[in-house]
Amino acid sequence: MTRQGRFITLEGIEGAGKTTQIEDVCAYLAEQGHTVVRTREPGGAPLAERIRALLLDPAATGMAEDTELLLMFAARAEHLARTIRPALAEGAWVVCDRFTDATYAYQGGGRGLAAARIAALEELVQGPLRPDLTLLFDVPVTVGLARAERRSAVDRFEAETIDFFDRVRAAYLARAAAEPGRIRRVDAGGDPGSVAAAVRAILADFGARQPG
Amino acid sequence: MTRQGRFITLEGIEGAGKTTQIEDVCAYLAEQGHTVVRTREPGGAPLAERIRALLLDPAATGMAEDTELLLMFAARAEHLARTIRPALAEGAWVVCDRFTDATYAYQGGGRGLAAARIAALEELVQGPLRPDLTLLFDVPVTVGLARAERRSAVDRFEAETIDFFDRVRAAYLARAAAEPGRIRRVDAGGDPGSVAAAVRAILADFGARQPG
Repeated sequence: MTRQGRFITLEGIEGAGKTTQIEDVCAYLAEQGHTVVRTREPGGAPLAERIRALLLDPAATGMAEDTELLLMFAARAEHLARTIRPALAEGAWVVCDRFTDATYAYQGGGRGLAAARIAALEELVQGPLRPDLTLLFDVPVTVGLARAERRSAVDRFEAETIDFFDRVRAAYLARAAAEPGRIRRVDAGGDPGSVAAAVRAILADFGARQPG
Repeated sequence: MTRQGRFITLEGIEGAGKTTQIEDVCAYLAEQGHTVVRTREPGGAPLAERIRALLLDPAATGMAEDTELLLMFAARAEHLARTIRPALAEGAWVVCDRFTDATYAYQGGGRGLAAARIAALEELVQGPLRPDLTLLFDVPVTVGLARAERRSAVDRFEAETIDFFDRVRAAYLARAAAEPGRIRRVDAGGDPGSVAAAVRAILADFGARQPG
C-alpha cells in the first residue's frame, strides 16, 4: 500500500547552482529508498514544455505582465495534473526545479506584479497544495550571473538587468523569512561539495521530522 | 480629441455564421464613420496567436481543463494589452470574434468548469472591462455543425461531440437571458442577407442609444 509522497522544490536566481545540486538531492533520496520523480518548471509535462518555450523565447519581447503570469500558471496546471499530483498519489518524492515561489520572486519581486494577483492564481490552480520543503539556493546576484554567463544561450529571463535579479533575490529571501519551516536557505556561494553536504543535512532533518 | 471607443463581440457555436457576419458588421460601422478594429479570440495579437495555435492543436489531446482555461486568459491578457485597450483608448470601435462569453460557454458549459473559476480570472485579467454589445448568433447545433463540416480541417474544439455543443449553446442562451441589455440574440438560421439586416438593426439601435 502506498502513501502520499513528498513535494520538494529548489529555488534560486540564475547561477545559484540548482541544476548541479538537484542531481545530488535526487541521488540522496534514492539512497534512502524513495521513488524519486525529478521535474522542472516551467515545463515538466509535454504541453507544459511547449508553454515553457513560449515563456523563454527571447523573441517574445514586450509580453504583457499578465500574459507571462497566466502562462506560468497554465504550464503549472498542466504540470500538476500530468506529473506532480499523480506521482505524489503513488507515493513518490517529487523534486522540482522551481515552483510557485519563483513566480512570487520573478513576476512579483522582479516585475512588480502584486502578490495578491499571484496568490489568487495559486489558490485557483493549486488549491491547498504547497511544497513540503523548499531549498532556497542563495548567492549574491553578481556571483550567480557570472556563473550563468559561462553557459551558452541567454533566455528571456537571463537577459534581465542586475536590478531585476536584486529584486528577485530580495523576494526569495523575504519568503524564506516568512516561512522558515518550509523554506530553508542554503548558502550556495561555496564549492558544490560543501553545498551538497549542507543540503543533505537539511534533507536528513526533513526526513527525520516526517518519516517516510 | 478622441473619446473612448466601443467594444462589440460576436459569439456563437461553430457554423453560426460569425465569420460571414463580422464582415458586414465592420462594413456597417465604417459606413457610420467609425474607425473599426477587427480582431478575434483566442488570438488577436502576435503572441496571443501563438497561444491560440497551442489551444487549437488537435495533437494537444488530454489538455487539463485548468490549462485550457488559463491559456485562454493568457491569450486574452495579451490581446487586451496589445490590441483592444489601445484601440479603445484611441476611440476605435473594436469588433471581436469571440471573447469571455465564449469561455463561459465552452469551458464552463461545454467542459463543466465552475463559473466562479472563470469569473475569478475575468476579474483578474479584465478588471471592469466588458463588451458594450454582444451579438449572439444562435443556430441549432445540428445546423451549425453541418455548416462547419463543409470547411476543411477540424480543430480541437470542432472535434467535440453534439452533446458538448448542446451544452455550449445552452450556456450562451442562459447568458443572453441573464444580460439582455448587453447580449442580443440573433436568429442565425436564415440566409446571410436577412441575418445581416437583423444585425444592422441592432447596431443602429445600439448607436442610437449610445451616440458615438
